[in-house]
Amino acid sequence: MGKLLIIGSVAFDAIETPFGKTDKILGGAGTYIGLSASQFDIESSVVSIVGEDFPDPYLQMLRDRNIDTSGIEIVKGGKTFFWSGKYHNDLNTRDTLVTELNVLADFNPIVPDNYKDAEIVMLGNLHPSIQLSVINQMEKRPKLIVLDTMNFWMDNTLNELIEVIKEVDVITINDEEARQLTGEYSLVRAAQKIHEMGPKYVVIKKGEHGALLFNGDNIFFAPALPLEEVFDPTGAGDTFAGGFTGYIAKTEDISFTNMKNAVIYGSNMASFCVEKFGTQRLENLTKNEIDERLQQFKTLTQFEIELT
Amino acid sequence: MGKLLIIGSVAFDAIETPFGKTDKILGGAGTYIGLSASQFDIESSVVSIVGEDFPDPYLQMLRDRNIDTSGIEIVKGGKTFFWSGKYHNDLNTRDTLVTELNVLADFNPIVPDNYKDAEIVMLGNLHPSIQLSVINQMEKRPKLIVLDTMNFWMDNTLNELIEVIKEVDVITINDEEARQLTGEYSLVRAAQKIHEMGPKYVVIKKGEHGALLFNGDNIFFAPALPLEEVFDPTGAGDTFAGGFTGYIAKTEDISFTNMKNAVIYGSNMASFCVEKFGTQRLENLTKNEIDERLQQFKTLTQFEIELT
Repeated sequence: MGKLLIIGSVAFDAIETPFGKTDKILGGAGTYIGLSASQFDIESSVVSIVGEDFPDPYLQMLRDRNIDTSGIEIVKGGKTFFWSGKYHNDLNTRDTLVTELNVLADFNPIVPDNYKDAEIVMLGNLHPSIQLSVINQMEKRPKLIVLDTMNFWMDNTLNELIEVIKEVDVITINDEEARQLTGEYSLVRAAQKIHEMGPKYVVIKKGEHGALLFNGDNIFFAPALPLEEVFDPTGAGDTFAGGFTGYIAKTEDISFTNMKNAVIYGSNMASFCVEKFGTQRLENLTKNEIDERLQQFKTLTQFEIELT
Repeated sequence: MGKLLIIGSVAFDAIETPFGKTDKILGGAGTYIGLSASQFDIESSVVSIVGEDFPDPYLQMLRDRNIDTSGIEIVKGGKTFFWSGKYHNDLNTRDTLVTELNVLADFNPIVPDNYKDAEIVMLGNLHPSIQLSVINQMEKRPKLIVLDTMNFWMDNTLNELIEVIKEVDVITINDEEARQLTGEYSLVRAAQKIHEMGPKYVVIKKGEHGALLFNGDNIFFAPALPLEEVFDPTGAGDTFAGGFTGYIAKTEDISFTNMKNAVIYGSNMASFCVEKFGTQRLENLTKNEIDERLQQFKTLTQFEIELT
């Protein structure tokens, strides 16, 4: 088993969907990734920053799941990053209502000493310079570095983003972002171009349409589980990344064959995330439920054809 | 092995995509279904109607593939159905430029006597009254009746469509049409409502995002093969239906397990269709290529996870 170092926001979200709305609740990429990865009974640490307004019970909840929070800086007198958004009726698009960076504006991540030798590093969506700084703090090259990013950084900090993309083994990105980054409409071609930028593995997330894993000519596809109802998509991509890296940290096997399994576990975890508001479903998830859903993924995708 | 009876248009298409345009070429749902199903070395018959302007070499090409064309009426002095369309840059949407029904306006299908006992019936996209008339001409209830339809009939002949939906075992429909027919955004719920309308099996086609097969609580998903380039999507849905029914006619097994395989073969055949203009790729397809692509589908979807 390998140690997993996670960097990502720990934040407040206020969410409105066709099914209801929340006050300020726990959110942030680092939170979702951490909660998701913690299901694999691994050693993990979240590096992040919050304000003095951040409730200690949230941090305690992470620690209760064996997540090291010593890398989460608490800024005295500071306010925690806050995001508010409203989803449209189809839940595939949303409007951002409020973004208050607050303490995140001056985030200077410090990797805890006992995680400078982590085998697996998950760089959640943040400014690429912050992501790069984490890589540079590692004592030796980790076994696997996974990067998540978004279109905002392509629009505003493309050069820095390209620098960090060079340094990672896996990138997770959604379909529209893959097209924007490469100028290629075909996802197969987009993945080829991203390979040329550095990452040996490219995961393209298609939301309700599943996720594709590319490794040169090898392609694997994991569907999203068809659900009767998607309640709140917030954090689904981060939860996917947490399932993906949590499984790899547990197995410490970075072959394509095992990474296929990691993509299935990512999709498995994400299917729970969207069932309730925020982190609610992840907080109450059991190992048994994950195992049962894995069986559903098998039924959904596995077939036996003898050539005729 | 069962006999497959196909009803659908045999027509002229003129197609424009970002990659080029064609003059009037061979098209029509019946043509695509027939060509696709013929790859399974089965006995099949296409029931349709064409005008005197329809070139005999096209009919001969179908007969060369062991497709019975005695049910294709040739109207003296009549003109063949003609459709023309232009695809947008993403190839997911298109504008219809011309629709000339011509002889199709008065189509009164006659099932050949030696196909009135066909085990499998594939009702290609046509006016629901025409589809119903074919069912009523069968000597006994076929083992499996598969219906394809589209939003046009929901808009214009909903009552007749509901009548024919009641009579069939399988419906193939795209995601937007499933939503329109049921008023449900969730495809899982849409499939439940369609089950209540009659069909025990519901296939929801999602284009480049694959296809879902529903049978009560059983759900199976077949991805579309990720391609470097989609050249012309015309006929892909019909080609899917041809692969689906051709495989079932060959195996004569209508269990859920076998229908999963049929969906994979549908997706397999459709992945070829889109590689060239019109029916070109299907006309030059070999059994070996289909077998190779089946292997690609396995690599794309099959995984082995031991519960941890």
